[in-house]
Amino acid sequence: MTDQTELLAHLRSIVGQAHVLTEGDLAAYEQDWRKRDHGKALAVVRPANTPEVAAVVKACAAAGVSIVPQGGNTGMVLGSIPDTTGTQVVLSLLRMNQVRKLDAANLTITVDAGCVLQNLHEVCDNAGFLFPLSLASKGSCTIGGNLGTNAGGTQVVRYGNTRELCLGLEVVTPQGEIWDGLTGLRKDNTGYDLRHLLIGSEGTLGIITAATMKLYPMPASMLTAFVAVPSLQAAVQLLGLAHQHVGAGLTGFEVMGQFALSLVTKHFPQLQVPFQTNMAPTRPTACGSLPPEGDAPCLGRPGAAAGYPYCVVLENSDQESEAHARERFERLLEIAMEQGCVVDAVVAESIAQARALWHIRESIPLAQAQEGLNIKHDISIVVSRIPDFVEQTDAALAQAFPGVRLVNYGHLGDGNLHYNVQAPVDADAKAFLREQEHGVNALVYDMVARFNGSISAEHGIGGLKREKLEHYKSPVALGMMRAVKQALDPQNTMNPGRVLSIE
Amino acid sequence: MTDQTELLAHLRSIVGQAHVLTEGDLAAYEQDWRKRDHGKALAVVRPANTPEVAAVVKACAAAGVSIVPQGGNTGMVLGSIPDTTGTQVVLSLLRMNQVRKLDAANLTITVDAGCVLQNLHEVCDNAGFLFPLSLASKGSCTIGGNLGTNAGGTQVVRYGNTRELCLGLEVVTPQGEIWDGLTGLRKDNTGYDLRHLLIGSEGTLGIITAATMKLYPMPASMLTAFVAVPSLQAAVQLLGLAHQHVGAGLTGFEVMGQFALSLVTKHFPQLQVPFQTNMAPTRPTACGSLPPEGDAPCLGRPGAAAGYPYCVVLENSDQESEAHARERFERLLEIAMEQGCVVDAVVAESIAQARALWHIRESIPLAQAQEGLNIKHDISIVVSRIPDFVEQTDAALAQAFPGVRLVNYGHLGDGNLHYNVQAPVDADAKAFLREQEHGVNALVYDMVARFNGSISAEHGIGGLKREKLEHYKSPVALGMMRAVKQALDPQNTMNPGRVLSIE
Repeated sequence: MTDQTELLAHLRSIVGQAHVLTEGDLAAYEQDWRKRDHGKALAVVRPANTPEVAAVVKACAAAGVSIVPQGGNTGMVLGSIPDTTGTQVVLSLLRMNQVRKLDAANLTITVDAGCVLQNLHEVCDNAGFLFPLSLASKGSCTIGGNLGTNAGGTQVVRYGNTRELCLGLEVVTPQGEIWDGLTGLRKDNTGYDLRHLLIGSEGTLGIITAATMKLYPMPASMLTAFVAVPSLQAAVQLLGLAHQHVGAGLTGFEVMGQFALSLVTKHFPQLQVPFQTNMAPTRPTACGSLPPEGDAPCLGRPGAAAGYPYCVVLENSDQESEAHARERFERLLEIAMEQGCVVDAVVAESIAQARALWHIRESIPLAQAQEGLNIKHDISIVVSRIPDFVEQTDAALAQAFPGVRLVNYGHLGDGNLHYNVQAPVDADAKAFLREQEHGVNALVYDMVARFNGSISAEHGIGGLKREKLEHYKSPVALGMMRAVKQALDPQNTMNPGRVLSIE
Repeated sequence: MTDQTELLAHLRSIVGQAHVLTEGDLAAYEQDWRKRDHGKALAVVRPANTPEVAAVVKACAAAGVSIVPQGGNTGMVLGSIPDTTGTQVVLSLLRMNQVRKLDAANLTITVDAGCVLQNLHEVCDNAGFLFPLSLASKGSCTIGGNLGTNAGGTQVVRYGNTRELCLGLEVVTPQGEIWDGLTGLRKDNTGYDLRHLLIGSEGTLGIITAATMKLYPMPASMLTAFVAVPSLQAAVQLLGLAHQHVGAGLTGFEVMGQFALSLVTKHFPQLQVPFQTNMAPTRPTACGSLPPEGDAPCLGRPGAAAGYPYCVVLENSDQESEAHARERFERLLEIAMEQGCVVDAVVAESIAQARALWHIRESIPLAQAQEGLNIKHDISIVVSRIPDFVEQTDAALAQAFPGVRLVNYGHLGDGNLHYNVQAPVDADAKAFLREQEHGVNALVYDMVARFNGSISAEHGIGGLKREKLEHYKSPVALGMMRAVKQALDPQNTMNPGRVLSIE
């Protein structure tokens, strides 16, 4: 037997014949979510529990074979598929999908890493608790992947990233040992915080096999508003007012540029975007004059928000009542209008209307894809400097790449923009990307660096941005990261080549 | 010149003659806060800025001399004083005490590590923002020390530990390099989270020289209630109700055992503890019938809460108004009384009354010290299991050490108890501690381990608990910690012997 055959036989003895996949269509494991790349695995191994994961890791370590841990394989940065050599084992956590324990009095839930986020939501909903992490891929992504990449999403302004929601981990080390850190404690100052070291390490320091996550009491009411603002500076001012007046009630604050919204109107005309024309400021407009429920969502004055440079979706979660949430929200919008930082507003009257307003925001990536190829940037800048960053970067791009169109939207509450660049309207998008992607990236990331921002706010580094990280990250920080990687994974078998290279 | 003389000359050339202290009374730097221990430094070095810190570290590293970083020297676990060999340099950050920047729109403040917490509070207050970290030593402790030990305090139930309040660090590495991680970003997924690795590492992985911390809008109102509960289980039930009904408004939830309160009454009779006798449940009692302001605090019925096993101090912070805060708080207490988990309650009518109620809670450690020597435990257990833990541990202690008295109080909202053991009333406390401290500690910590809790919830490990950590912490976790330490500080010159030993 060759070494590889021996290893495969060993792996089959650990997880069972049926769970070592080497043949057939393995695209679900080998192709990345954005369909940019396709790797080739030595095998896809699907352990059923943590001891099996540990045994698989030990077997691979002994054979010197590297491992690519994988959850829902929904990552954006080529961090969860194997390379093309056919020598790496994909270790899929998908069979480990059980809720281990919900502790109501401790407000925690302990789950296997392979639990799909949406399933976790359902368990929590049914028990009357909120698990706030929410992102577009929630129907496929797993909590282990969310932790490995420190996923963000739409609720970060209130609840933080996945990191802030985690109270403990169970981890299999690169040596195949099991660290049980599933304490569920809110305070534990007993040495270095290995939990935070593993979170966001993208499978390069060990494999997260389970986690204890925070729960919150379900809010009595969640209200959504869609408002037009006269500038990005005004959106920042509105954010400050929202923090001041609704405090921790502010659970969503998403900004959308006018061109991004126009793409939604163009490609999904059934999603009527509020505010057709640039109108004089009005009082907050509830949608009461429209059908309050049903297919037609809450829409104020349908259209493409054409006259306003930016719109904002705000969400207010309230522990008290819908009436109280509405009163607070409308008071906020009144103050914002008095100060001139909101020029038009609708507040959803029903859950259906709220969903419709969120759906506009969530449709931007799809509308953008419909419009054609584009260059994506997941960046963050301190909130106070975002208006300057956007003004300067918009201008620099317009000068360097005449005609480019900017699809700018994102989680302004966290300083996180999806600042994407669409080819000029008359250009061959494929050729534009081929010729200009590198230059566009360099311009945007150089500007991010000048503003002391991050070139990956919520998607991580993976294989896609590793070289960029080495260019932009502080050499001192990179040196510390490399020292930690070499200390914990001296064989470099855990997701090698991702996040950082080991010379 | 000897090596030491050479090093001292070098250090003087870096920070100036006046800031290398080798003579006179250095007790402020060499004696620990609890006056348990007194070390002897080679020198106390007081750099003025980060480049000076880096130069000092490089000089010491070259000389193979180890460094004890020190802020306000208020630590509880012998982590910030030198050992007795006279060979370690104490690096005091106290001269680095400036606020570098307050960014209102980003809700952040960037400060030198040596900034005293209370000074930071004043700057934030004056600018209309809340910096929520609050602990007993705030007049002396520094933000760098708070970060190095991941300090907790009384606001953790809402705002988290110091860790959760930090958005970026500036750090001098053990090699004397400067890592500038002061981004102020709320999202940054570019590699391993070195910030969280440094926070809570107690100066063993590098020296924190500055930090960017989160701010919050100042609440419109903060209300305090003091309630009696029939059992610890009822206190846990009340906590759940408070989370549900006031949500993020719950900014304090402190439990106090009857014996702890009786010590306050005994040693500080001017602090009238509410609820003299075990009375029938009443409606929430505001203190309106007492003088609303002035020296006499809000006291309901003065006394020692003698009939109630536990009392709870709750704080409700509200972004809206005092009237709203009061309405929500009284509604919560009504529900809690209906459910039987609160049997008596007072709500402060003024800030003076609120301070008086908090002052009772804060006087417990002093009252306990007045009563005599005692054995302290800073432990955490998941909230849901605290009643069982206390019942079983109380019983085991009573059996093993007849007559011991339990001063049990703490941050129940975070599962953190200060579970302290006072000698029997007729015992020689000094002899009791000498003979029984080890046995008492072993019993309590063994029980903590059985409940999967932490032997140091908020105080850290330092030199005091290092051997205990090696006994109680998972060997896998200890192995990972040791690998990280050796990778980042291979010379073992950064606060050696603290947190963990390097063989």
